[in-house]
Amino acid sequence: MNPENLPAMIDLLIHPEWIIPIEPRGVTLSGHALAVNDGVIVDLLPFDEASKRYSPKEKISLPGQVILPGLINLHTHAALSLLRGYADDSPLNTWLTQHIWPAEARHASPDFVHTGTLLACAEMLAGGITTFSDMYFFPAAAAKAIDQSGMRAALGLVVMDQPTNYATDADDYLAKGLALRDAQKDHPRLSFCLAPHAPYTVTDKTFEKIATLSAQLDIPVHTHLHETRHEIEEAIKQHGVRPLQRLDNLGLLGPQLIAVHAVHLNAADMDRLSHTGCHVALCPSSNLKLGSGLPPIAELQRHNIRCGLGTDSAASNNRLDLFQEMRLAALLAKGMSEDAASFPAHHALQAATLNAACALGLDHRIGSLVPGKAADLCAVSLNDWQLQPCFDPASHLVYAASRENVTHTWVAGILQMHQGKPKNIELPLLIKQTRIWQSRINS
Amino acid sequence: MNPENLPAMIDLLIHPEWIIPIEPRGVTLSGHALAVNDGVIVDLLPFDEASKRYSPKEKISLPGQVILPGLINLHTHAALSLLRGYADDSPLNTWLTQHIWPAEARHASPDFVHTGTLLACAEMLAGGITTFSDMYFFPAAAAKAIDQSGMRAALGLVVMDQPTNYATDADDYLAKGLALRDAQKDHPRLSFCLAPHAPYTVTDKTFEKIATLSAQLDIPVHTHLHETRHEIEEAIKQHGVRPLQRLDNLGLLGPQLIAVHAVHLNAADMDRLSHTGCHVALCPSSNLKLGSGLPPIAELQRHNIRCGLGTDSAASNNRLDLFQEMRLAALLAKGMSEDAASFPAHHALQAATLNAACALGLDHRIGSLVPGKAADLCAVSLNDWQLQPCFDPASHLVYAASRENVTHTWVAGILQMHQGKPKNIELPLLIKQTRIWQSRINS
Repeated sequence: MNPENLPAMIDLLIHPEWIIPIEPRGVTLSGHALAVNDGVIVDLLPFDEASKRYSPKEKISLPGQVILPGLINLHTHAALSLLRGYADDSPLNTWLTQHIWPAEARHASPDFVHTGTLLACAEMLAGGITTFSDMYFFPAAAAKAIDQSGMRAALGLVVMDQPTNYATDADDYLAKGLALRDAQKDHPRLSFCLAPHAPYTVTDKTFEKIATLSAQLDIPVHTHLHETRHEIEEAIKQHGVRPLQRLDNLGLLGPQLIAVHAVHLNAADMDRLSHTGCHVALCPSSNLKLGSGLPPIAELQRHNIRCGLGTDSAASNNRLDLFQEMRLAALLAKGMSEDAASFPAHHALQAATLNAACALGLDHRIGSLVPGKAADLCAVSLNDWQLQPCFDPASHLVYAASRENVTHTWVAGILQMHQGKPKNIELPLLIKQTRIWQSRINS
Repeated sequence: MNPENLPAMIDLLIHPEWIIPIEPRGVTLSGHALAVNDGVIVDLLPFDEASKRYSPKEKISLPGQVILPGLINLHTHAALSLLRGYADDSPLNTWLTQHIWPAEARHASPDFVHTGTLLACAEMLAGGITTFSDMYFFPAAAAKAIDQSGMRAALGLVVMDQPTNYATDADDYLAKGLALRDAQKDHPRLSFCLAPHAPYTVTDKTFEKIATLSAQLDIPVHTHLHETRHEIEEAIKQHGVRPLQRLDNLGLLGPQLIAVHAVHLNAADMDRLSHTGCHVALCPSSNLKLGSGLPPIAELQRHNIRCGLGTDSAASNNRLDLFQEMRLAALLAKGMSEDAASFPAHHALQAATLNAACALGLDHRIGSLVPGKAADLCAVSLNDWQLQPCFDPASHLVYAASRENVTHTWVAGILQMHQGKPKNIELPLLIKQTRIWQSRINS
């Protein structure tokens, strides 16, 4: 409050029917407003008080709507939106070796990555996603698309010991990734992860370098881990231990690690993840669709392992839709544990927001509606007649609503999507470019 | 073709981008048209020929869209839409005994059923569903709502050995159900099933009567079966055998039986379902959400047991959305079998159409786009930029599209829903009535 008790000037006051701040957990506020200034949440308070205390440049009233933090997609390969649904229903090995990898070898390029990432950004913004954690080749081209879109992203600097169109060997991948980080380190919406692709594509030596770099630079490590039974069997043959134990031996496990998938975990794996404080990026649609298995979500929760949610790519999902992933994660947890109370709605909402922010080391800036954090928000309308009646807005978001009910997405206080239309992406041009890529891929 | 080779007059010619007729399986036609006259499909042929052969009163061109048979919801309790999301995330026993059953005891009435069923019909039509198999009290009130909506339905004539607001004992339930069937047996869009609620609410004597009646009247029997582990354990205590074996002993198993849920099946159960030719109504969202368990979809397929899909009620789903169920069924089958090729898209589409028609004994009239069958259809737009690119319309329907992409729903050749708006249901009035029920339920 200013000294003379005059209302403080702010940029924006949002007055929805409900606010779900995520912190504290399990709370749904009615009759409250969110005050935003200079891209930052400055207050969350009863609407009556807000009217007295603030003089906003813009005031948005959203009856029947919920405001919650922008959703965070903890694992995707955004560029692969151009392969949405490519070779669906093929067995995993055929899909990878005869379809996806050859298509990537033929087409992956900065242009492919730019268009594919822009398409992914548009789709994610339309579905209330404000931040994503990406892993793909040519991250500089992705950075360009992300910058245009207005989204926030944690770019995974991919590293493998195999050559691709993008880089020749592990050192080349690392050099290219770190050069991008140096060039973009002041970007207000970009952060970085080291992204060794997977235990079966990265050598011990490279993993050790990555562990050292992660500690030196204080950035997370984002890797595929224990996705399939086959991966673990092959690892035991080659290394004598399961991948998680190998990574533990190499110094990779800890709160800086984001283990993507974590589908196949024995009791020792579960303890190892828990004791080291690793984060898990659950990708339930992708794990099921690729026949990898059923992610043990309720078990991970029982072990207090913090889980975020990821869509994986549109080639294996085929939607970049965290509403779908929240619903599926909650349903799977309940079905597998045979306990309807498992993974309740507020847990699913937290997984899709704050837990992912923590995993990315960004929880001081995003993931919950706490004054001082960035105004990364989405508004979801529960007014649709198909959602009536509504007894609980939080569980309605998870079990009844869908991304089609998202009406607004703000990043750092800027409205980046309204009524299905991203503000900074020219959709007709994007669709034209997408169709050109589709023809090339089909040819 | 008429004798002089002049184009035949018909009511409607639809020319979409793709047609998925379901029969034969796995086929997606391009450049074809569907000819409809007097509510019936009269032809499915290349568009060029159709233009010469038919002179339609109305011609609808649908570029970028798919026409497929109207979806069939093989199990729901439509009236419970008024309890959508009521007491979400409660453990099953608490949910039933402390929330759902008391709410039903307080509120279930012809008025409740009429409003709830109308709300369900509106939602289903908007999502491309043309027929549903219902099980609830006061089916005469449901019949009134269905008649108004223009939908097709198989009304389950519910029977229990417990008294409710609706009936006093098994004979009373049966008498009321059969009286409704007598009154409505000439309705062009209504059919009937005998619907003993479940093995734990129906005595041997009543089941035997139902078996006799089903044979006499030649109508299906629709019952909840092997939904939870608890149900089976209690049945063994009480009857000494598993419910499926008990029903087999009582003469209930056969092609006339629709076993709803079938989540917990041992090898003998699976053989029993297979050898007797029973149909299964899978309700994956509900089974997971209520913590009942994981329906063994891939195993059922391996045993050649014909499975349709149901939403169950909006109290345990919370969407009456067969796009969601197709996706979830396909994903669960793949995830549980660890085989990405399991339950491919065309199987999911068949489960949601023809298999359900067979289960209801209606496959001579609905379930596939075959000349002579009723023109029960839906049109789905794959033009949405969020669905680009599209490599395969069939798998796109299952994995990428959602009910929000349905644009038209026809029942017997009549357009009953267009762009989210049911033709015969006044939405503002329906929402008002829904809100009144919500207040009563909350009070």
